[in-house]
Amino acid sequence: MSTPVLTLAQLNAAAPAAAVAMLDGVYEHSPWIAQRALAQRPFRSLAHLKHALVQALAASSADEQIGLIRAHPELAGKAMVSKTLTAESTNEQSKAGLTDCTPEEFAQIQKLNADYNAKFGFPFILAVRGPRGLGLPKREIIETFARRLHNHPSFELGEALRNIHRIAEIRLNDKFGADITLGNDVWDWQEQLSVHTDPGYAEKGQLTVTYLTDAHRACAAQISGWMRDCGFDSVHIDAVGNVVGRYEGATPDAKTLLTGSHYDTVRNGGKYDGRLGIFVPMACVRELKRQNRRLPFAFEVVGFAEEEGQRYKATFLGSGALIGHFDQRWLEQKDADGITMREAMQHAGLKEEDIPKIQRDPARYLGFVEVHIEQGPVLTELDLPLGIVTSINGSVRYVGEVIGMASHAGTTPMDRRRDAAAAVAELILFTEQRAAKDGDSVGTVGMLEVPSGSINVVPGRCKFSLDLRAPNNAQRDALANDVVAALKDICERRGVRYELEETMRAAAAPSAPAWQQRWEQAVDAQGIPLFRMPSGAGHDAMKLHEVMPQAMLFVRGINSGISHNPLESSTNDDIQLAVQAFQLLLDNLAAEQAH
Amino acid sequence: MSTPVLTLAQLNAAAPAAAVAMLDGVYEHSPWIAQRALAQRPFRSLAHLKHALVQALAASSADEQIGLIRAHPELAGKAMVSKTLTAESTNEQSKAGLTDCTPEEFAQIQKLNADYNAKFGFPFILAVRGPRGLGLPKREIIETFARRLHNHPSFELGEALRNIHRIAEIRLNDKFGADITLGNDVWDWQEQLSVHTDPGYAEKGQLTVTYLTDAHRACAAQISGWMRDCGFDSVHIDAVGNVVGRYEGATPDAKTLLTGSHYDTVRNGGKYDGRLGIFVPMACVRELKRQNRRLPFAFEVVGFAEEEGQRYKATFLGSGALIGHFDQRWLEQKDADGITMREAMQHAGLKEEDIPKIQRDPARYLGFVEVHIEQGPVLTELDLPLGIVTSINGSVRYVGEVIGMASHAGTTPMDRRRDAAAAVAELILFTEQRAAKDGDSVGTVGMLEVPSGSINVVPGRCKFSLDLRAPNNAQRDALANDVVAALKDICERRGVRYELEETMRAAAAPSAPAWQQRWEQAVDAQGIPLFRMPSGAGHDAMKLHEVMPQAMLFVRGINSGISHNPLESSTNDDIQLAVQAFQLLLDNLAAEQAH
Repeated sequence: MSTPVLTLAQLNAAAPAAAVAMLDGVYEHSPWIAQRALAQRPFRSLAHLKHALVQALAASSADEQIGLIRAHPELAGKAMVSKTLTAESTNEQSKAGLTDCTPEEFAQIQKLNADYNAKFGFPFILAVRGPRGLGLPKREIIETFARRLHNHPSFELGEALRNIHRIAEIRLNDKFGADITLGNDVWDWQEQLSVHTDPGYAEKGQLTVTYLTDAHRACAAQISGWMRDCGFDSVHIDAVGNVVGRYEGATPDAKTLLTGSHYDTVRNGGKYDGRLGIFVPMACVRELKRQNRRLPFAFEVVGFAEEEGQRYKATFLGSGALIGHFDQRWLEQKDADGITMREAMQHAGLKEEDIPKIQRDPARYLGFVEVHIEQGPVLTELDLPLGIVTSINGSVRYVGEVIGMASHAGTTPMDRRRDAAAAVAELILFTEQRAAKDGDSVGTVGMLEVPSGSINVVPGRCKFSLDLRAPNNAQRDALANDVVAALKDICERRGVRYELEETMRAAAAPSAPAWQQRWEQAVDAQGIPLFRMPSGAGHDAMKLHEVMPQAMLFVRGINSGISHNPLESSTNDDIQLAVQAFQLLLDNLAAEQAH
Repeated sequence: MSTPVLTLAQLNAAAPAAAVAMLDGVYEHSPWIAQRALAQRPFRSLAHLKHALVQALAASSADEQIGLIRAHPELAGKAMVSKTLTAESTNEQSKAGLTDCTPEEFAQIQKLNADYNAKFGFPFILAVRGPRGLGLPKREIIETFARRLHNHPSFELGEALRNIHRIAEIRLNDKFGADITLGNDVWDWQEQLSVHTDPGYAEKGQLTVTYLTDAHRACAAQISGWMRDCGFDSVHIDAVGNVVGRYEGATPDAKTLLTGSHYDTVRNGGKYDGRLGIFVPMACVRELKRQNRRLPFAFEVVGFAEEEGQRYKATFLGSGALIGHFDQRWLEQKDADGITMREAMQHAGLKEEDIPKIQRDPARYLGFVEVHIEQGPVLTELDLPLGIVTSINGSVRYVGEVIGMASHAGTTPMDRRRDAAAAVAELILFTEQRAAKDGDSVGTVGMLEVPSGSINVVPGRCKFSLDLRAPNNAQRDALANDVVAALKDICERRGVRYELEETMRAAAAPSAPAWQQRWEQAVDAQGIPLFRMPSGAGHDAMKLHEVMPQAMLFVRGINSGISHNPLESSTNDDIQLAVQAFQLLLDNLAAEQAH
């Protein structure tokens, strides 16, 4: 990292041309971006400056955007070989080891460069410097390159711009000597915890941690150890395997703020889903302890043992146990190897009879907050690091089938068909339009099949699934009623029939307004715009919602926000902002309590 | 069968009330149908009368139609037990053995009666008397009953009315002493030929006759034998297994009229597909021989050995060989047991070196005509026994895939999706509407699948097939261009991409106008309305089309016109009309040639 030469105060005070010069090299050969963004001065924070640059590019013309992308060198391309790269690019490409390719790697990258340019008309852009200034492994760069070659052009344009912003962010961090220690530390915890994975996955390089396996128990031990290192007053593993760390308040009778998320994963999952919500508050406690600060309330961070329902069908087991929702019948469930949950718990030294004792008394708690990676594309597409959750969506799911009449595709005139697939096609488009009308509802037909379909047979049957979600139950029910009514109408009009089975119905969990507002204050103070959004996925907060007020904070996921996938990822910069926001929420809450 | 008491001349001449009385009992308790139909007098033929009755019912109100159905007794129901059935119903139910049920069968039928009435609100109607006045087997009646219970109400209403017309037709045949000997004889040939079936199918009661199996060769021998019995001058099995029968013309230098169809079947196929086109002209030759009549042209009836491409991928092998389209590479193809076509031909005693010799000289032929079961629902839904084919549709087939981006169904807002299935849904509906606009084009997405779809994942991929057909190549190409353009537009608008592979393109075979007109004259003379229609399926006539003029006649298929299925069926009455039409075509052609 180069020596910091710049402060925000200097930038805010500089004459226009001098200010542009200060940001020289942040966007490759494109000072116009800095020029436009600087009109937004003064900047409240580095994050504010970064967002102003993002906005300047977003408001530019398509030609300007393509021009910016084309101003970038190819990866390990001619400019690198002829040593005509900018100083910044030389630094980045060399840290990624690209100046040190084998002839095979070099040839492979040249082929990818040619194919990519032929398809998209601009060079491949990847932010090749990771956290702590380290380069990405060459293997990962080549894999990402090959994967992105398959993207749709309109999507890949966005990916290129997002990577340019990420490159700019890293260059700005260097320029301003940004302190992202907290983000880097959380990043390191994520990385280190991900070495534990269930048997059969490690050799494939996959992360899988399911309830009470050896890897799962190693994770619990690891999190407990880190919590102790951070200075929690007490750390223990409870009767269902939750890791519970407490940092006591200034007085013994103080109420408790509860937070946390889960440390189990889906099969071949990501490193951030759940775990980020344990490590972000853990970093906050470490900082409090370093400052020897006590808050006027106790702070309890729980790593929930089970949320994903992978080994046993017992989703939200960890957070559910805290509100007394442990179903005794789960104990008889067997995993794929025939091991019952009871046996797994005994093997882990957990005491079934202690489970009721971990139920919390809501009267002793202020509320529950949870930090979670977004698991969706919204924040990344809007170039926003953090989002305020307004509600965890309520949902309803169905599986269904339309039954028409199979007939000869050549001899059955269009007006004499009873085409089951055409009926489902109408349902798909209706669902799409009806959900879009709400703005914040979603509706999905994820499973779709004409069983044993033939190219020359009008479909007699078509199977499908329906997943409908909305931020509150009334909106969800109105959506579901309209979609089911449409299915009925479509089938009546087409002279086909349908079968539909409701397989799940979950209530919405709207954020408690006061707690949502606390997150908003904390995010606003980072100098970035507030963005409110529902959570489409379920979270542990849904369980706590049943007994106490709750609100969640979302952190942007990169790679289109993909989740339940090894590509799930975040950045040290975004995590840094999340820790800072959480610290501020604690500070503000302390100030409130002091009054 | 009761003694005939009535002639059409008497009916045409009778006073209105007397005429209604003459038709008493044809439609159960519903003399109003006869009353309305009689306004169409004079009737040119019994078929004309039958059609007038059909039209009278078609023009009646929904209440009148339901009333007619409800005027029918339940099968083996209370009226049968209490002996209050009409004389006609008693006769029919007793011939079907329904008056002689076991207690189990009786209980089963009562349960079906109750379920059926509860679902549709009217009793189950089935024409239980088959050809030659025999009843349908009880087992078949119960199976049909159970199957039809699953039909859509709007479709089952049509089935009930169609069965009522069939019951009326049989009752009218009795009243007028209709001569349906030719139809019955062809019916018998169909039944008898269907005893030959490939190994593994007989025990399942299924009909399967594929190229050069023992069953196939038994069929060839059987058809040859019958041709000889009918009085063909020469009968032989040619180098590819076609059965060729010739009935020579009045002079040795006379040109030849060619006809025929195939005797192979699909797996678990029907008895009529192909074979009807051999037996109908065979009956014509028998009648010519009986009358010792010679036509001014020779008449050649060919049972084509192979059309369905089941054992080997060599569709239209039999008719293709007659126009010199035998692909030598086919000989190396192996069947599922590893037997090459060459080995199969050697085993059957066929001589590969003779194949080129069977190519016909078109200059020696007047043209080609073919009778075929419709294999579609049009004629049965319009209550028409025969249809005039205007063209064998040209077709084009594709298999394709839309590639979007899989994402979380809960967290991906509707306006940020790249849903592959929704794109295909649009394509399905576009194809449906675009094909319908032509009136006589058809377009089908028969295969449809989201591979490994999940209820909570926005589809990232969706596979589909496309089958597009139209009566001429220009119309087919315009349809295909519009559908492919729509796919492109849909994918561009949705930010997804597609792959599309054309797997088949077959030219249309429009009927030769002069030959189509000959069929029209022959059908019109039967007293039934002309109905012109394209053939959606391919036929042997497509091959002969390449070297000589051709035209086809369609015969109604009952059971919704289902084909490639054991339910494929025709009636002795419809076959009788087909034979009569063919006889007239020969007579008219003879008269033309005489001039």
